Parts: sequence; C-alpha cells; structure tokens
Amino acid sequence: MSPHHAPKQRWALTLAYDGSRFYGFQKQADGIATVQAALEHALSRIAQEPITVTAAGRTDTGVHASAQVVHFDTAAERVPQAWIRGVNAHLPQGIAVLHAQTVAPEFHARFDASGRHYRYLLQSAPVRSPLLIGKAGWTHYPLDLAAMQQAVQHLVGEHDFSSFRAAQCQAKSPVKTIYHAHIDGTPECYKLDLHGNAFLHHMVRNIMGALVYVGSGRMSPQAFAGLIAERSRLKAPPTFMPDGLYLTGVDYPPHFGITPPQIPAWL
Amino acid sequence: MSPHHAPKQRWALTLAYDGSRFYGFQKQADGIATVQAALEHALSRIAQEPITVTAAGRTDTGVHASAQVVHFDTAAERVPQAWIRGVNAHLPQGIAVLHAQTVAPEFHARFDASGRHYRYLLQSAPVRSPLLIGKAGWTHYPLDLAAMQQAVQHLVGEHDFSSFRAAQCQAKSPVKTIYHAHIDGTPECYKLDLHGNAFLHHMVRNIMGALVYVGSGRMSPQAFAGLIAERSRLKAPPTFMPDGLYLTGVDYPPHFGITPPQIPAWL
Repeated sequence: MSPHHAPKQRWALTLAYDGSRFYGFQKQADGIATVQAALEHALSRIAQEPITVTAAGRTDTGVHASAQVVHFDTAAERVPQAWIRGVNAHLPQGIAVLHAQTVAPEFHARFDASGRHYRYLLQSAPVRSPLLIGKAGWTHYPLDLAAMQQAVQHLVGEHDFSSFRAAQCQAKSPVKTIYHAHIDGTPECYKLDLHGNAFLHHMVRNIMGALVYVGSGRMSPQAFAGLIAERSRLKAPPTFMPDGLYLTGVDYPPHFGITPPQIPAWL
Repeated sequence: MSPHHAPKQRWALTLAYDGSRFYGFQKQADGIATVQAALEHALSRIAQEPITVTAAGRTDTGVHASAQVVHFDTAAERVPQAWIRGVNAHLPQGIAVLHAQTVAPEFHARFDASGRHYRYLLQSAPVRSPLLIGKAGWTHYPLDLAAMQQAVQHLVGEHDFSSFRAAQCQAKSPVKTIYHAHIDGTPECYKLDLHGNAFLHHMVRNIMGALVYVGSGRMSPQAFAGLIAERSRLKAPPTFMPDGLYLTGVDYPPHFGITPPQIPAWL
C-alpha cells in the first residue's frame, strides 16, 4: 500500500494549558494565538502531514484546562511518546500534552463526552494577589461560605439554565444536568467544583457571578434558587472574570478506555 | 515649619510580587524592571518626593514573595490606604502592596528581621504543567517523601551552611540557624517550608537541589547530612530553578508591632 493510502489511526490526547496566554481554544484567523492553532501546528510537525483536532470543549479566552481531551486522525505511525514529548517540543510555553493513546475510529472527543468537570478558583481579599493574576478570580468582598454552599445545592439536577446562559450560546437546549456541585475553601481562597453532562456558554462564570452575590450578602440562597427558576439572564448578576476557570476533566463511556483525568493537587 | 523641614515618618510595607516578571528585587541600571525600581517609582508618585526603600531580603530574579517587608521614610503625610491602594494604582502587574503601617524611626526592615520564612513548591510529573511555569519548580523524577522528610531534619539547628552557599554570597558568616524545616505534599506536588534566622545566597535553591537528589534516590538522607558536615559547595548537587521559591514572611521583635504575615492558603 503506498504511503498516501496508509490507513488512518485515531488518537486521543489529554492536554493542559494556561488560558491567559491564548485567545481561546478555537482556531481563528491566521496568526491569532489559539490553543487549537498551536496544537495543530505542533502535531502536524510530528505527523509530517496536516492534522486537525476536535476538542471536548472549546474554552474561551482566559479559561484554563488541566485535562482537556481532543482527538485527531493520522496515517503517521508514531509511538505515544512522540505525541507527548515530540509534540511538546514544538508547542509554545503555556500548553502541554500530558497523555496520548490510540482510540476506536468511532470515538469522538466532543459527542461521546458524557460529563465535564469544571473548577473555579476565587480569591477574596482587600488586595488582589499579584501571584494569582490570570489564575484565580478575585473579589474584595468577604464571603459567607455557608450561604454559597446552600446556594450551589440548587444547581444539582436537571434544570433549564437560561439564567446562566450567554446571549451568543449555540447549544440546542438550555436544559442541562448538574451531577455534583460543591464549594469549599478558606476565607481567602475558594474552590467551586461543578460536574455536569454539559455546560452552556459562560455558564460557570455566570454561576460564579451569582455566587459572589450570595457570598457577599447581596442575594440570598433562596433568591439564587429563584434566579434559576426565572430562566432569564436579565435579572442575573454579571458574568464573572475567566481567570479562575479550569476545565479539569471530561468523562467518556468506559468502553472507550480513555484514561480518566485527575485534578492536580495544586489546583 | 516649612514643608522641606517637615519631620520624616518611617513606614513599613508588606508586599507580594511575582518574581518571574522582574529581574530580582534590587535596583539596577535605569530601565531594568526590578521590584525596587517599580516600588520606588510608585511610592514617589504618591509621596510627591523621591522615596528609597530598604527590604528585609533581596530576592533573586524569578523568586516570589507573598510577604516581603520594606521600610522607607517620607515627609509626606498620607493615610495607610494611600500607601496601599494609591501605590498599587501606580504599580505594574505582578506587584502589590498588601499592608502599610507607621513604625518607630529606628525600625530597619533588614537589620531588625529576626527570622525569615521561605516556601518552595515543586511539581513531580512526567510532563511539566503549563499552569505552573514560573510558579513551581519541576522534576520528572518520582520522589520519595519519607526520604526527603528524613533529610530536612538535618537542617534544623545552627550549622555552617557553606555546602548550600553561592560563590557570590556576601554574608559575613556561613553559620545560620534553621528553626524549622518540613517537607510535605502529594506524589505530584511538594511544599518545602524553611524558617531560619537568615539565609545565604541561593541557600534554599541549593537545599532543594540536594533534596531532589534525595527524593529521587541519587543521595541518601545520611549523605545529605554528610553534605552539610562537609561545608563545601564542590560536592553538592546543582542549584535548583528559582520558579518555586517564595519569601512567605519576615519576623520582627514584637515591640515593633509589625503585623505578622500569613502564608496564603493557595500557596
């Protein structure tokens, strides 16, 4: 069989990136630094042929990933380490492939994803730490953790999340299921963890915006529940900054054998 | 009394900075971005007169601070918030004043410091996280925490630390006292905490270099103790990268009333 007829193999990669260094995941016009453009460039160098990737979730500008999943097809025969170390040698600072594995040809990083994990890190302090710029959201308000913990419980289950949906959201339906919602932390630093089947555009940042209202006493946990029931973005608090948002994992049905992600200890 | 004869008041500031954005603390030639140059520029804007600061410790390029202490004198009468919010408005990203207070005229940020606290963050993983670049050291070796915990106990007490002293160190004596030494963490991320009366140039980074040798099995905890006893830099492992090093606090005798620092929860 001649090289250009070599059968293609589908690969899945887990990657991490610092979203503050890129204009989002999705490829844009030539010369715009996006995660996809940087990754496809590096993969193509290793494959010696043009590579196109499909991601589980297209993160916005400033949003990080500790375990984004993408798939791509290639006729190039390479060992997994080539798609890790080899590709990393061609990637700019701020993005790295953590894991590479072959997958069934029908595996689709986006359509087969059965769940997504997001974490939001939030600093509450009179002065924003220069060490957390781009890495955590910030509010000068002292926050009431118990009130925020009460509020997030209202997110769990199947809901119409139109109250937390960006105007430009292209999802077919605003109905999503949240499996788990938890916020914890110290008076200075909070971690919000959300696990759901899928998320609307800006959904986590909009939830965070409302939670800061709850934590600072400007909205009660009951009003937060009412806000969800309202199904309208109009009365919701503004979208919170992207800085503290991390895509920390993507779930797939076990038969695909995708190595499950772990939230790094330092997040 | 005319303004130029106004009595001077001494102030102490606590500041945090991202060392990866500066060429160290100490002022250099014009136009070099150092913490001191940025801070003195911003303070002088608020004071409307030239201000010179003296720091507890002059951190190197790449080394961070979550609670560095400096003092300065000024005839300008300002409320503490002016030296915090006002100065922060004139500082570049990556540095912020966290606290300001008046102090006795004899207070000296460097000579009165009775102790310094340093923390080193270290990632151990096959691939370096793009989210920790500049913020944590990195080794691809898996590490043995118990061995490192055994080794650091040999640091405690008064020792001649010539084995961990940089050639260019200007300290009068290589004898320093370590009050407390502890390393802890997960298999992926370690935190080394050192508390001592003073530290030699590169001392923490040199200790970290040797600890990574211990953790990766290239040096026994006993050999680490022997290295200290040797009092020679020649046989010691190389200096570790500055990325994970944080000055997390400075101690002063209580009568100065300096607000004690707290290590931020996210460090």
